[in-house]
Amino acid sequence: MSERHGPARDDRRLAMAIEYDGSAFSGWQRLTKPGEEERRSEPTIQAAVEEALSFVAGTRIETVCAGRTDAGVHARAQVIHFDSPVERDPRGWVLGTTTRLPPSVCVRWCVPVAADFHARFSARARRYRYRLVNRPVRPALMREYLGWERRPLDAEAMHRAAQALVGEHDFSAFRTVHCQAPHARRNLHEISVRRDGEIVDIEVQANAFLHHQVRNIVGSLLVVGRGEQPEAWIAELLAGRDRTVAGPTAPASGLMFLGPKYPAEWGLPAEVCL
Amino acid sequence: MSERHGPARDDRRLAMAIEYDGSAFSGWQRLTKPGEEERRSEPTIQAAVEEALSFVAGTRIETVCAGRTDAGVHARAQVIHFDSPVERDPRGWVLGTTTRLPPSVCVRWCVPVAADFHARFSARARRYRYRLVNRPVRPALMREYLGWERRPLDAEAMHRAAQALVGEHDFSAFRTVHCQAPHARRNLHEISVRRDGEIVDIEVQANAFLHHQVRNIVGSLLVVGRGEQPEAWIAELLAGRDRTVAGPTAPASGLMFLGPKYPAEWGLPAEVCL
Repeated sequence: MSERHGPARDDRRLAMAIEYDGSAFSGWQRLTKPGEEERRSEPTIQAAVEEALSFVAGTRIETVCAGRTDAGVHARAQVIHFDSPVERDPRGWVLGTTTRLPPSVCVRWCVPVAADFHARFSARARRYRYRLVNRPVRPALMREYLGWERRPLDAEAMHRAAQALVGEHDFSAFRTVHCQAPHARRNLHEISVRRDGEIVDIEVQANAFLHHQVRNIVGSLLVVGRGEQPEAWIAELLAGRDRTVAGPTAPASGLMFLGPKYPAEWGLPAEVCL
Repeated sequence: MSERHGPARDDRRLAMAIEYDGSAFSGWQRLTKPGEEERRSEPTIQAAVEEALSFVAGTRIETVCAGRTDAGVHARAQVIHFDSPVERDPRGWVLGTTTRLPPSVCVRWCVPVAADFHARFSARARRYRYRLVNRPVRPALMREYLGWERRPLDAEAMHRAAQALVGEHDFSAFRTVHCQAPHARRNLHEISVRRDGEIVDIEVQANAFLHHQVRNIVGSLLVVGRGEQPEAWIAELLAGRDRTVAGPTAPASGLMFLGPKYPAEWGLPAEVCL
Protein backbone atom coordinates (compact mmCIF):
# COMPACT_ATOMS: atom_id res chain seq x y z
CA MET A 1 0.00 0.00 0.00
CA SER A 2 1.46 3.31 -1.11
CA GLU A 3 2.02 6.20 1.30
CA ARG A 4 2.88 8.61 -1.53
CA HIS A 5 0.54 11.43 -2.55
CA GLY A 6 -1.27 11.48 -5.91
CA PRO A 7 -1.64 8.55 -8.25
CA ALA A 8 1.09 6.00 -7.55
CA ARG A 9 2.12 2.59 -8.86
CA ASP A 10 0.13 0.73 -6.23
CA ASP A 11 -2.92 3.00 -6.26
CA ARG A 12 -6.20 1.55 -7.40
CA ARG A 13 -8.29 3.59 -9.84
CA LEU A 14 -12.00 3.50 -9.07
CA ALA A 15 -15.07 4.73 -10.96
CA MET A 16 -18.14 5.81 -9.02
CA ALA A 17 -21.61 7.07 -9.91
CA ILE A 18 -22.90 9.94 -7.80
CA GLU A 19 -26.60 10.84 -7.60
CA TYR A 20 -27.53 14.30 -6.36
CA ASP A 21 -30.24 16.85 -5.85
CA GLY A 22 -28.40 20.00 -6.93
CA SER A 23 -30.98 22.43 -5.47
CA ALA A 24 -28.84 23.62 -2.58
CA PHE A 25 -25.44 23.48 -4.33
CA SER A 26 -23.40 26.03 -6.30
CA GLY A 27 -22.83 23.30 -8.89
CA TRP A 28 -20.44 20.36 -9.13
CA GLN A 29 -17.08 22.07 -9.32
CA ARG A 30 -15.16 22.85 -6.15
CA LEU A 31 -14.55 26.61 -5.81
CA THR A 32 -11.71 26.31 -3.33
CA LYS A 33 -8.35 24.54 -3.47
CA PRO A 34 -8.25 20.95 -2.22
CA GLY A 35 -7.96 21.00 1.58
CA GLU A 36 -9.12 24.61 1.79
CA GLU A 37 -12.42 24.98 3.63
CA GLU A 38 -15.49 25.80 1.51
CA ARG A 39 -17.46 28.97 2.00
CA ARG A 40 -20.79 27.93 3.52
CA SER A 41 -22.58 30.20 1.09
CA GLU A 42 -21.12 28.31 -1.89
CA PRO A 43 -21.27 24.58 -1.20
CA THR A 44 -20.28 22.32 -4.09
CA ILE A 45 -20.98 18.67 -4.72
CA GLN A 46 -17.35 17.95 -5.58
CA ALA A 47 -16.14 19.23 -2.21
CA ALA A 48 -18.79 17.18 -0.36
CA VAL A 49 -17.84 14.04 -2.30
CA GLU A 50 -14.08 14.53 -1.88
CA GLU A 51 -14.47 15.16 1.83
CA ALA A 52 -16.49 11.95 2.25
CA LEU A 53 -14.08 9.89 0.09
CA SER A 54 -11.08 11.28 1.96
CA PHE A 55 -12.64 10.24 5.25
CA VAL A 56 -13.27 6.69 4.00
CA ALA A 57 -9.77 6.43 2.47
CA GLY A 58 -8.05 8.02 5.44
CA THR A 59 -6.07 10.18 3.01
CA ARG A 60 -6.85 13.09 0.68
CA ILE A 61 -8.78 11.99 -2.42
CA GLU A 62 -9.29 14.16 -5.51
CA THR A 63 -11.84 13.41 -8.20
CA VAL A 64 -12.43 13.96 -11.91
CA CYS A 65 -16.04 14.03 -13.17
CA ALA A 66 -17.70 13.22 -16.50
CA GLY A 67 -19.60 16.48 -16.79
CA ARG A 68 -19.61 19.48 -14.48
CA THR A 69 -23.13 20.61 -13.67
CA ASP A 70 -24.24 24.15 -12.84
CA ALA A 71 -25.85 25.47 -9.67
CA GLY A 72 -29.27 23.86 -9.12
CA VAL A 73 -28.79 21.12 -11.75
CA HIS A 74 -29.35 17.50 -10.64
CA ALA A 75 -27.63 14.25 -11.59
CA ARG A 76 -28.86 10.66 -11.76
CA ALA A 77 -25.42 9.22 -12.52
CA GLN A 78 -22.52 11.65 -12.42
CA VAL A 79 -19.50 9.42 -13.03
CA ILE A 80 -16.21 10.24 -11.34
CA HIS A 81 -12.84 8.55 -11.09
CA PHE A 82 -10.24 8.75 -8.36
CA ASP A 83 -7.12 6.94 -7.23
CA SER A 84 -6.93 5.38 -3.81
CA PRO A 85 -3.92 3.99 -1.96
CA VAL A 86 -6.21 1.97 0.29
CA GLU A 87 -8.19 -1.16 -0.50
CA ARG A 88 -11.92 -1.19 0.20
CA ASP A 89 -14.48 -3.46 -1.37
CA PRO A 90 -16.91 -1.63 -3.71
CA ARG A 91 -19.77 -2.06 -1.23
CA GLY A 92 -17.63 -0.44 1.47
CA TRP A 93 -16.91 2.54 -0.79
CA VAL A 94 -20.60 2.96 -1.69
CA LEU A 95 -22.06 2.68 1.81
CA GLY A 96 -19.15 4.25 3.73
CA THR A 97 -19.00 7.28 1.45
CA THR A 98 -22.78 7.75 1.37
CA THR A 99 -22.86 7.77 5.18
CA ARG A 100 -20.51 10.79 5.14
CA LEU A 101 -22.51 12.69 2.49
CA PRO A 102 -25.38 15.13 3.04
CA PRO A 103 -28.90 13.70 2.37
CA SER A 104 -28.97 15.35 -1.08
CA VAL A 105 -26.01 13.28 -2.36
CA CYS A 106 -25.36 9.53 -2.51
CA VAL A 107 -23.15 6.97 -4.25
CA ARG A 108 -25.02 4.61 -6.59
CA TRP A 109 -22.15 2.24 -7.34
CA CYS A 110 -18.37 1.90 -7.34
CA VAL A 111 -16.23 -0.34 -9.56
CA PRO A 112 -12.46 -0.79 -9.98
CA VAL A 113 -11.30 0.34 -13.44
CA ALA A 114 -8.16 0.21 -15.55
CA ALA A 115 -5.51 2.82 -14.67
CA ASP A 116 -6.06 4.64 -17.98
CA PHE A 117 -9.81 5.09 -17.53
CA HIS A 118 -10.70 8.78 -17.30
CA ALA A 119 -14.23 9.85 -16.26
CA ARG A 120 -14.12 12.84 -18.60
CA PHE A 121 -11.90 11.84 -21.52
CA SER A 122 -13.12 8.24 -21.83
CA ALA A 123 -16.76 9.34 -22.11
CA ARG A 124 -18.15 9.22 -25.66
CA ALA A 125 -21.50 10.86 -24.87
CA ARG A 126 -23.47 12.71 -22.20
CA ARG A 127 -27.22 12.56 -21.75
CA TYR A 128 -29.46 15.20 -20.17
CA ARG A 129 -33.17 15.46 -19.50
CA TYR A 130 -35.09 18.70 -19.07
CA ARG A 131 -38.48 18.14 -17.41
CA LEU A 132 -41.13 20.80 -17.14
CA VAL A 133 -44.74 20.99 -16.11
CA ASN A 134 -47.00 22.73 -18.63
CA ARG A 135 -50.08 24.18 -16.94
CA PRO A 136 -51.39 27.56 -15.77
CA VAL A 137 -50.40 27.06 -12.14
CA ARG A 138 -46.88 26.57 -10.75
CA PRO A 139 -46.00 23.09 -9.41
CA ALA A 140 -45.88 22.34 -5.67
CA LEU A 141 -45.00 18.63 -5.86
CA MET A 142 -41.52 17.84 -7.26
CA ARG A 143 -40.98 21.56 -7.78
CA GLU A 144 -37.23 21.21 -7.10
CA TYR A 145 -37.02 18.91 -10.13
CA LEU A 146 -39.20 20.74 -12.65
CA GLY A 147 -39.24 23.71 -14.94
CA TRP A 148 -42.63 25.36 -15.49
CA GLU A 149 -44.32 26.83 -18.57
CA ARG A 150 -47.77 28.32 -17.98
CA ARG A 151 -48.70 28.84 -21.65
CA PRO A 152 -49.80 25.82 -23.71
CA LEU A 153 -46.91 24.12 -25.51
CA ASP A 154 -47.05 22.24 -28.81
CA ALA A 155 -44.60 19.48 -27.87
CA GLU A 156 -44.79 17.88 -31.33
CA ALA A 157 -43.76 21.14 -33.00
CA MET A 158 -40.88 21.42 -30.51
CA HIS A 159 -39.79 17.87 -31.34
CA ARG A 160 -39.83 18.52 -35.10
CA ALA A 161 -37.99 21.84 -34.71
CA ALA A 162 -35.32 20.24 -32.51
CA GLN A 163 -34.32 17.72 -35.17
CA ALA A 164 -32.41 20.50 -36.97
CA LEU A 165 -29.87 20.32 -34.12
CA VAL A 166 -28.92 16.69 -34.71
CA GLY A 167 -25.43 16.17 -36.12
CA GLU A 168 -22.12 18.00 -35.82
CA HIS A 169 -22.59 21.77 -35.71
CA ASP A 170 -21.15 24.96 -34.32
CA PHE A 171 -23.50 25.58 -31.36
CA SER A 172 -22.42 29.19 -30.69
CA ALA A 173 -26.10 30.27 -30.74
CA PHE A 174 -26.72 28.15 -27.63
CA ARG A 175 -23.51 28.86 -25.71
CA THR A 176 -23.26 31.22 -22.76
CA VAL A 177 -20.72 34.04 -22.96
CA HIS A 178 -19.04 32.47 -19.91
CA CYS A 179 -18.31 29.23 -21.78
CA GLN A 180 -14.58 28.51 -21.74
CA ALA A 181 -14.47 25.75 -24.36
CA PRO A 182 -11.91 26.43 -27.13
CA HIS A 183 -14.50 25.92 -29.88
CA ALA A 184 -18.27 25.44 -30.17
CA ARG A 185 -18.42 22.35 -32.40
CA ARG A 186 -20.32 19.49 -30.79
CA ASN A 187 -21.94 16.35 -32.18
CA LEU A 188 -25.55 16.15 -31.03
CA HIS A 189 -26.60 12.49 -31.31
CA GLU A 190 -30.30 12.77 -30.61
CA ILE A 191 -32.96 15.00 -29.13
CA SER A 192 -36.58 14.27 -28.36
CA VAL A 193 -39.52 16.23 -26.95
CA ARG A 194 -42.33 14.15 -25.47
CA ARG A 195 -45.49 15.03 -23.57
CA ASP A 196 -47.12 12.85 -20.88
CA GLY A 197 -50.13 14.77 -19.59
CA GLU A 198 -48.90 17.98 -17.94
CA ILE A 199 -45.25 16.85 -18.13
CA VAL A 200 -43.02 17.69 -21.11
CA ASP A 201 -39.62 15.94 -21.27
CA ILE A 202 -36.77 17.09 -23.49
CA GLU A 203 -34.00 14.48 -23.69
CA VAL A 204 -30.77 15.17 -25.48
CA GLN A 205 -27.53 13.31 -26.05
CA ALA A 206 -24.29 14.68 -27.50
CA ASN A 207 -20.60 13.80 -27.45
CA ALA A 208 -20.23 16.76 -25.08
CA PHE A 209 -22.04 19.99 -24.24
CA LEU A 210 -21.12 23.65 -24.07
CA HIS A 211 -21.83 25.67 -20.94
CA HIS A 212 -25.64 26.23 -20.70
CA GLN A 213 -26.17 24.48 -24.04
CA VAL A 214 -29.09 22.30 -22.94
CA ARG A 215 -30.86 25.08 -21.03
CA ASN A 216 -30.40 27.47 -23.97
CA ILE A 217 -31.75 24.91 -26.44
CA VAL A 218 -34.75 24.36 -24.14
CA GLY A 219 -35.33 28.11 -23.84
CA SER A 220 -35.48 28.45 -27.64
CA LEU A 221 -37.66 25.34 -28.09
CA LEU A 222 -40.15 26.89 -25.63
CA VAL A 223 -40.45 29.94 -27.91
CA VAL A 224 -41.42 27.56 -30.74
CA GLY A 225 -43.69 25.51 -28.45
CA ARG A 226 -45.66 28.63 -27.52
CA GLY A 227 -46.08 29.41 -31.22
CA GLU A 228 -44.11 32.67 -31.05
CA GLN A 229 -41.66 31.51 -33.71
CA PRO A 230 -42.06 28.94 -36.51
CA GLU A 231 -40.41 25.53 -36.32
CA ALA A 232 -37.74 26.58 -38.82
CA TRP A 233 -36.50 29.24 -36.38
CA ILE A 234 -34.35 26.68 -34.50
CA ALA A 235 -32.42 25.85 -37.70
CA GLU A 236 -32.01 29.59 -38.38
CA LEU A 237 -30.67 30.22 -34.89
CA LEU A 238 -28.17 27.39 -35.26
CA ALA A 239 -26.97 28.68 -38.64
CA GLY A 240 -26.76 32.29 -37.35
CA ARG A 241 -24.45 31.38 -34.42
CA ASP A 242 -25.68 34.46 -32.54
CA ARG A 243 -26.53 33.83 -28.87
CA THR A 244 -28.22 37.23 -28.55
CA VAL A 245 -31.17 36.33 -30.80
CA ALA A 246 -31.93 32.90 -29.28
CA GLY A 247 -34.42 32.23 -26.46
CA PRO A 248 -33.61 32.78 -22.78
CA THR A 249 -31.80 30.19 -20.62
CA ALA A 250 -34.33 27.80 -19.05
CA PRO A 251 -34.15 27.58 -15.22
CA ALA A 252 -31.73 25.05 -13.70
CA SER A 253 -34.28 23.15 -11.61
CA GLY A 254 -35.70 21.20 -14.57
CA LEU A 255 -32.31 19.90 -15.70
CA MET A 256 -31.00 16.43 -14.82
CA PHE A 257 -27.67 14.99 -15.93
CA LEU A 258 -28.76 11.42 -16.68
CA GLY A 259 -25.16 10.36 -17.10
CA PRO A 260 -22.25 9.82 -19.48
CA LYS A 261 -21.81 6.88 -21.85
CA TYR A 262 -18.56 4.89 -22.14
CA PRO A 263 -17.45 2.12 -24.49
CA ALA A 264 -18.44 -1.28 -23.04
CA GLU A 265 -14.78 -2.34 -22.81
CA TRP A 266 -14.30 -0.36 -19.58
CA GLY A 267 -16.62 -2.81 -17.83
CA LEU A 268 -18.86 -0.21 -16.20
CA PRO A 269 -22.51 -0.81 -15.22
CA ALA A 270 -24.92 -0.93 -18.17
CA GLU A 271 -26.58 2.41 -17.39
CA VAL A 272 -23.41 4.30 -18.43
CA CYS A 273 -22.42 2.10 -21.40
CA LEU A 274 -22.91 2.90 -25.06
CA MET B 1 -73.84 39.40 -2.26
CA SER B 2 -74.22 38.30 1.36
CA GLU B 3 -72.50 40.12 4.20
CA ARG B 4 -73.44 37.43 6.73
CA HIS B 5 -70.88 35.04 8.23
CA GLY B 6 -70.89 31.29 7.45
CA PRO B 7 -72.80 29.59 4.65
CA ALA B 8 -75.72 31.76 3.62
CA ARG B 9 -78.46 31.67 1.04
CA ASP B 10 -76.48 33.69 -1.48
CA ASP B 11 -73.12 31.99 -0.85
CA ARG B 12 -71.55 30.01 -3.68
CA ARG B 13 -70.15 26.58 -2.85
CA LEU B 14 -66.87 25.84 -4.59
CA ALA B 15 -64.75 22.70 -4.93
CA MET B 16 -61.00 23.00 -5.29
CA ALA B 17 -58.10 20.57 -5.75
CA ILE B 18 -54.99 21.30 -3.69
CA GLU B 19 -51.57 19.85 -4.55
CA TYR B 20 -48.93 19.82 -1.83
CA ASP B 21 -45.53 18.64 -0.76
CA GLY B 22 -46.27 17.67 2.84
CA SER B 23 -42.59 17.42 3.90
CA ALA B 24 -42.55 20.56 6.02
CA PHE B 25 -46.11 20.35 7.38
CA SER B 26 -47.65 18.80 10.49
CA GLY B 27 -50.34 17.34 8.23
CA TRP B 28 -53.51 18.70 6.65
CA GLN B 29 -55.63 19.45 9.68
CA ARG B 30 -55.47 22.85 11.36
CA LEU B 31 -54.34 22.53 15.00
CA THR B 32 -55.66 25.91 16.10
CA LYS B 33 -59.11 27.47 16.02
CA PRO B 34 -60.05 29.46 12.90
CA GLY B 35 -58.57 32.94 13.21
CA GLU B 36 -56.12 31.86 15.92
CA GLU B 37 -52.49 32.16 14.85
CA GLU B 38 -50.63 28.89 14.12
CA ARG B 39 -47.60 27.83 16.07
CA ARG B 40 -44.64 28.16 13.71
CA SER B 41 -43.40 24.78 14.84
CA GLU B 42 -46.62 23.10 13.68
CA PRO B 43 -47.66 24.51 10.32
CA THR B 44 -50.63 22.81 8.65
CA ILE B 45 -51.75 22.82 5.05
CA GLN B 46 -55.35 23.62 6.02
CA ALA B 47 -54.31 26.81 7.81
CA ALA B 48 -52.15 27.91 4.86
CA VAL B 49 -55.01 27.26 2.40
CA GLU B 50 -57.66 28.97 4.54
CA GLU B 51 -55.44 32.00 5.06
CA ALA B 52 -54.88 32.31 1.30
CA LEU B 53 -58.57 31.79 0.48
CA SER B 54 -59.62 34.31 3.12
CA PHE B 55 -57.30 36.89 1.59
CA VAL B 56 -58.73 36.33 -1.89
CA ALA B 57 -62.33 36.37 -0.61
CA GLY B 58 -61.76 39.33 1.70
CA THR B 59 -63.60 37.43 4.44
CA ARG B 60 -62.89 34.40 6.61
CA ILE B 61 -63.16 31.12 4.66
CA GLU B 62 -63.29 27.67 6.26
CA THR B 63 -62.72 24.45 4.34
CA VAL B 64 -63.70 20.77 4.48
CA CYS B 65 -61.33 18.24 2.88
CA ALA B 66 -61.81 14.80 1.29
CA GLY B 67 -59.12 13.06 3.34
CA ARG B 68 -56.94 14.43 6.11
CA THR B 69 -53.29 13.54 5.53
CA ASP B 70 -50.64 13.06 8.23
CA ALA B 71 -47.42 14.96 8.78
CA GLY B 72 -45.05 14.49 5.83
CA VAL B 73 -47.67 12.96 3.50
CA HIS B 74 -48.14 14.55 0.06
CA ALA B 75 -51.22 15.10 -2.10
CA ARG B 76 -51.68 15.28 -5.85
CA ALA B 77 -55.35 16.27 -5.63
CA GLN B 78 -56.72 16.93 -2.14
CA VAL B 79 -60.28 18.06 -2.79
CA ILE B 80 -61.86 20.66 -0.53
CA HIS B 81 -65.12 22.57 -0.53
CA PHE B 82 -65.93 25.97 0.92
CA ASP B 83 -68.62 28.60 0.75
CA SER B 84 -67.85 32.08 -0.45
CA PRO B 85 -70.00 35.21 -0.27
CA VAL B 86 -67.91 36.80 -3.03
CA GLU B 87 -67.89 36.03 -6.73
CA ARG B 88 -64.60 35.22 -8.43
CA ASP B 89 -64.12 33.34 -11.68
CA PRO B 90 -62.48 29.90 -11.21
CA ARG B 91 -59.24 31.11 -12.79
CA GLY B 92 -59.13 33.98 -10.30
CA TRP B 93 -59.55 31.57 -7.38
CA VAL B 94 -56.82 29.25 -8.70
CA LEU B 95 -54.19 31.87 -9.49
CA GLY B 96 -55.06 34.34 -6.73
CA THR B 97 -55.03 31.69 -4.02
CA THR B 98 -51.83 30.05 -5.31
CA THR B 99 -50.06 33.42 -5.20
CA ARG B 100 -50.79 33.60 -1.45
CA LEU B 101 -49.63 30.02 -0.73
CA PRO B 102 -46.12 28.85 0.19
CA PRO B 103 -44.14 27.21 -2.70
CA SER B 104 -44.99 23.72 -1.38
CA VAL B 105 -48.76 24.20 -1.93
CA CYS B 106 -50.80 25.18 -5.00
CA VAL B 107 -54.36 25.05 -6.35
CA ARG B 108 -54.83 22.78 -9.37
CA TRP B 109 -58.41 23.75 -10.23
CA CYS B 110 -61.57 25.29 -8.83
CA VAL B 111 -65.17 24.64 -9.93
CA PRO B 112 -68.56 25.83 -8.65
CA VAL B 113 -70.60 22.93 -7.23
CA ALA B 114 -74.13 22.30 -6.00
CA ALA B 115 -74.86 23.53 -2.46
CA ASP B 116 -75.18 19.94 -1.18
CA PHE B 117 -71.78 18.79 -2.45
CA HIS B 118 -69.51 17.81 0.46
CA ALA B 119 -65.81 17.12 -0.13
CA ARG B 120 -65.77 14.39 2.52
CA PHE B 121 -69.26 12.85 2.52
CA SER B 122 -69.83 12.95 -1.25
CA ALA B 123 -66.59 11.03 -1.92
CA ARG B 124 -67.11 7.35 -2.78
CA ALA B 125 -63.43 6.37 -2.78
CA ARG B 126 -59.92 7.58 -1.93
CA ARG B 127 -56.76 6.57 -3.74
CA TYR B 128 -53.22 6.50 -2.34
CA ARG B 129 -49.82 5.60 -3.76
CA TYR B 130 -46.82 4.51 -1.70
CA ARG B 131 -43.58 4.80 -3.68
CA LEU B 132 -40.28 3.42 -2.49
CA VAL B 133 -36.83 2.89 -3.90
CA ASN B 134 -35.46 -0.63 -3.44
CA ARG B 135 -31.66 -0.64 -3.48
CA PRO B 136 -28.79 -0.87 -1.00
CA VAL B 137 -28.15 2.87 -0.88
CA ARG B 138 -30.55 5.58 0.30
CA PRO B 139 -32.01 7.93 -2.38
CA ALA B 140 -30.71 11.48 -2.87
CA LEU B 141 -32.95 12.50 -5.79
CA MET B 142 -36.69 12.79 -4.99
CA ARG B 143 -35.91 11.65 -1.43
CA GLU B 144 -38.76 13.81 -0.04
CA TYR B 145 -41.18 11.71 -2.11
CA LEU B 146 -39.84 8.21 -1.53
CA GLY B 147 -39.68 5.46 1.03
CA TRP B 148 -36.56 3.27 0.96
CA GLU B 149 -36.01 -0.46 1.41
CA ARG B 150 -32.39 -1.62 1.23
CA ARG B 151 -33.08 -5.38 1.16
CA PRO B 152 -34.31 -6.96 -2.11
CA LEU B 153 -38.10 -7.06 -2.39
CA ASP B 154 -40.18 -9.63 -4.23
CA ALA B 155 -42.82 -7.23 -5.57
CA GLU B 156 -44.83 -10.03 -7.19
CA ALA B 157 -45.15 -11.86 -3.87
CA MET B 158 -46.23 -8.58 -2.26
CA HIS B 159 -48.86 -8.10 -4.96
CA ARG B 160 -50.26 -11.60 -4.51
CA ALA B 161 -50.29 -11.31 -0.71
CA ALA B 162 -52.05 -7.93 -0.87
CA GLN B 163 -55.04 -9.35 -2.76
CA ALA B 164 -56.30 -10.85 0.53
CA LEU B 165 -57.14 -7.28 1.60
CA VAL B 166 -59.58 -6.61 -1.24
CA GLY B 167 -63.23 -6.40 -0.19
CA GLU B 168 -65.04 -5.27 2.95
CA HIS B 169 -63.15 -6.21 6.11
CA ASP B 170 -62.45 -5.13 9.66
CA PHE B 171 -58.99 -3.55 9.26
CA SER B 172 -58.15 -3.36 12.98
CA ALA B 173 -54.79 -5.07 12.29
CA PHE B 174 -53.71 -2.04 10.21
CA ARG B 175 -55.17 0.75 12.34
CA THR B 176 -53.14 2.94 14.66
CA VAL B 177 -54.17 3.09 18.33
CA HIS B 178 -54.76 6.83 17.78
CA CYS B 179 -57.45 6.19 15.16
CA GLN B 180 -60.70 7.82 16.21
CA ALA B 181 -63.05 6.17 13.70
CA PRO B 182 -66.09 4.54 15.38
CA HIS B 183 -65.42 1.20 13.66
CA ALA B 184 -62.72 -0.42 11.52
CA ARG B 185 -64.79 -1.78 8.63
CA ARG B 186 -63.67 -0.44 5.27
CA ASN B 187 -64.21 -1.56 1.69
CA LEU B 188 -60.86 -1.90 -0.09
CA HIS B 189 -61.57 -1.73 -3.84
CA GLU B 190 -58.16 -2.61 -5.21
CA ILE B 191 -54.49 -2.81 -4.37
CA SER B 192 -51.50 -3.38 -6.64
CA VAL B 193 -47.74 -3.67 -6.15
CA ARG B 194 -45.64 -2.98 -9.25
CA ARG B 195 -41.90 -2.71 -9.81
CA ASP B 196 -40.23 -0.45 -12.40
CA GLY B 197 -36.47 -0.90 -11.97
CA GLU B 198 -35.49 0.34 -8.50
CA ILE B 199 -38.94 1.83 -7.88
CA VAL B 200 -41.75 -0.16 -6.23
CA ASP B 201 -45.24 1.41 -6.28
CA ILE B 202 -48.08 0.27 -4.05
CA GLU B 203 -51.41 1.75 -5.15
CA VAL B 204 -54.54 1.25 -3.13
CA GLN B 205 -58.13 2.43 -3.35
CA ALA B 206 -60.86 2.07 -0.71
CA ASN B 207 -64.13 3.76 0.16
CA ALA B 208 -62.25 5.34 3.06
CA PHE B 209 -59.15 4.66 5.15
CA LEU B 210 -58.39 4.33 8.84
CA HIS B 211 -55.61 6.39 10.41
CA HIS B 212 -52.22 5.01 9.21
CA GLN B 213 -53.98 2.21 7.31
CA VAL B 214 -51.98 2.57 4.08
CA ARG B 215 -48.63 2.94 5.84
CA ASN B 216 -49.38 -0.04 8.08
CA ILE B 217 -50.39 -2.19 5.10
CA VAL B 218 -47.16 -1.17 3.34
CA GLY B 219 -45.10 -1.99 6.44
CA SER B 220 -46.55 -5.51 6.54
CA LEU B 221 -46.20 -6.05 2.78
CA LEU B 222 -42.51 -5.18 3.12
CA VAL B 223 -42.10 -8.02 5.64
CA VAL B 224 -43.51 -10.39 2.99
CA GLY B 225 -41.47 -8.76 0.21
CA ARG B 226 -38.24 -9.41 2.14
CA GLY B 227 -39.26 -13.05 2.53
CA GLU B 228 -39.51 -12.87 6.32
CA GLN B 229 -43.12 -14.03 6.30
CA PRO B 230 -45.06 -16.11 3.74
CA GLU B 231 -47.61 -14.51 1.45
CA ALA B 232 -50.48 -15.96 3.51
CA TRP B 233 -49.35 -13.89 6.51
CA ILE B 234 -51.24 -10.81 5.26
CA ALA B 235 -54.55 -12.74 5.28
CA GLU B 236 -53.72 -14.02 8.78
CA LEU B 237 -52.99 -10.52 10.06
CA LEU B 238 -56.27 -9.24 8.64
CA ALA B 239 -58.24 -12.08 10.23
CA GLY B 240 -56.43 -11.69 13.58
CA ARG B 241 -57.33 -7.96 13.89
CA ASP B 242 -54.31 -7.47 16.16
CA ARG B 243 -52.21 -4.39 15.33
CA THR B 244 -49.39 -5.52 17.64
CA VAL B 245 -48.38 -8.47 15.43
CA ALA B 246 -48.42 -6.63 12.06
CA GLY B 247 -45.41 -4.92 10.44
CA PRO B 248 -44.19 -1.44 11.41
CA THR B 249 -45.69 1.78 9.99
CA ALA B 250 -43.87 2.76 6.76
CA PRO B 251 -42.39 6.31 6.77
CA ALA B 252 -44.66 9.17 5.65
CA SER B 253 -42.40 10.49 2.85
CA GLY B 254 -43.35 7.73 0.38
CA LEU B 255 -47.09 8.32 0.71
CA MET B 256 -49.09 10.40 -1.75
CA PHE B 257 -52.85 11.03 -1.59
CA LEU B 258 -53.69 10.75 -5.29
CA GLY B 259 -57.18 12.02 -4.63
CA PRO B 260 -60.80 11.14 -3.88
CA LYS B 261 -63.38 9.87 -6.39
CA TYR B 262 -66.89 11.33 -6.70
CA PRO B 263 -69.91 10.28 -8.74
CA ALA B 264 -69.80 11.97 -12.18
CA GLU B 265 -73.08 13.85 -11.48
CA TRP B 266 -71.22 16.45 -9.40
CA GLY B 267 -69.52 17.67 -12.56
CA LEU B 268 -65.97 17.67 -11.21
CA PRO B 269 -62.82 17.26 -13.35
CA ALA B 270 -62.26 13.70 -14.62
CA GLU B 271 -59.26 13.01 -12.37
CA VAL B 272 -61.55 12.88 -9.30
CA CYS B 273 -64.54 11.12 -10.91
CA LEU B 274 -65.48 7.45 -10.53
